[in-house]
Amino acid sequence: MTYCVGLRLNRGLVFMSDTRTNAGVDNISVFKKMFQWESEGERSITLMTAGNLATTQAVVSLLNERAKPAEERGAPSILEAPSMFQVARLVGETLREVIASQAGDSGPDAEGAFSASLILGGQVRGGDPRLFMIYPEGNFVEASDDTPFFQIGETKYGKPILVRAYDPEMSFEDAVKLLMLSFDSTIKANLSVGLPLDMHLYETDTFRHGLRRRIEQDHAYYQMISSSWGEALKEAFQTLPSYSLD
Amino acid sequence: MTYCVGLRLNRGLVFMSDTRTNAGVDNISVFKKMFQWESEGERSITLMTAGNLATTQAVVSLLNERAKPAEERGAPSILEAPSMFQVARLVGETLREVIASQAGDSGPDAEGAFSASLILGGQVRGGDPRLFMIYPEGNFVEASDDTPFFQIGETKYGKPILVRAYDPEMSFEDAVKLLMLSFDSTIKANLSVGLPLDMHLYETDTFRHGLRRRIEQDHAYYQMISSSWGEALKEAFQTLPSYSLD
Repeated sequence: MTYCVGLRLNRGLVFMSDTRTNAGVDNISVFKKMFQWESEGERSITLMTAGNLATTQAVVSLLNERAKPAEERGAPSILEAPSMFQVARLVGETLREVIASQAGDSGPDAEGAFSASLILGGQVRGGDPRLFMIYPEGNFVEASDDTPFFQIGETKYGKPILVRAYDPEMSFEDAVKLLMLSFDSTIKANLSVGLPLDMHLYETDTFRHGLRRRIEQDHAYYQMISSSWGEALKEAFQTLPSYSLD
Repeated sequence: MTYCVGLRLNRGLVFMSDTRTNAGVDNISVFKKMFQWESEGERSITLMTAGNLATTQAVVSLLNERAKPAEERGAPSILEAPSMFQVARLVGETLREVIASQAGDSGPDAEGAFSASLILGGQVRGGDPRLFMIYPEGNFVEASDDTPFFQIGETKYGKPILVRAYDPEMSFEDAVKLLMLSFDSTIKANLSVGLPLDMHLYETDTFRHGLRRRIEQDHAYYQMISSSWGEALKEAFQTLPSYSLD
């Protein structure tokens, strides 16, 4: 499985992804699921992937090959597309193309096995930062004020804290704390989501990558958050009045 | 869908279930999913159901018919079985029998469509209170100190708070608060889980039903818990130090 979250804040975009892949519980590996493209001063693009690893790696490889400026191409690459909307179309088409080619002639049923979902976010000069969720069919939806974040993979355990504590005005520091709590709840409940985590903080109108970090098992802040949250939650629980049996 | 939780405390057993059933999102109904049998001074048994409604209703009807003392029967009924373990075996066999009869000759694939899971708890004189999770195959596992609660149905959204705030020493008042928070997280995230809720608090060595309540939409305490928890959680979130970007 996988867990990735993309968060839209007023000050920018925050991305976090785990790195565990598994084929059964007895075969786990570490693979990066966050990928970036940049043309400094003009655009920063981040992609996170969930689903069939062969599919998502092929999508990233194709996007990379087609992004080479030297290459003779007919279609524009994600480093040339004029807007984030056009970048999302390009990525969606690439995803659909890869799934269709993996499934071959085996028909729509086979496509399920090769399926994948993506979160895409970034900013291209001339537009605002935008965040998209891209489906295996190649179509996509955009984050809005009502739904300011997207999750892919094992989304359920980590959702309640996101829903309750998210605030569009929050700082990057608080957003990282929030995402770490959401990941910690998920990692504690689902073996197929695991450390290390990758993160990227994109700041609006910088048009280049922001802070990028890998959070390893021994990351002091993550460990502190993970162990303190249980106590903080218990204290919050105690502040609410108990049910009366009368 | 459904959400039911059975909790094993030192002072007894706590059961809570929702009442929403759905066939698609455009066809929802209210059905009770918590059932009780009692022989006062001797045993109290509670059953909660998730899965195919025709299956679970048939199981409960069969258990009721067979519990009639006047009836001539070869096998012991759940009001006569000598221990909670034997009650669980009886309920498990009934579940397997119903699923097999619903699926008829259509083979194992059809059984998936008629599948159901159960949480069974209670106490029979001569034994301790016991809590079981019963699978569609008719077999079952028992709650232990390591795993003191069972969930069936939509289990993921409501699990993190259970894991963090559960304490075997907690009072019934706190246990109801905890379960309401777990249900509230689930109801806020999954439309197919809904109010009203049924609950039952069984106190160890009373050998009769304890407090049983139905929590309706306008239940003042539930509404207070639901609206206060967001604030309490935000405050808990603020007490943890923020991530440092340096």
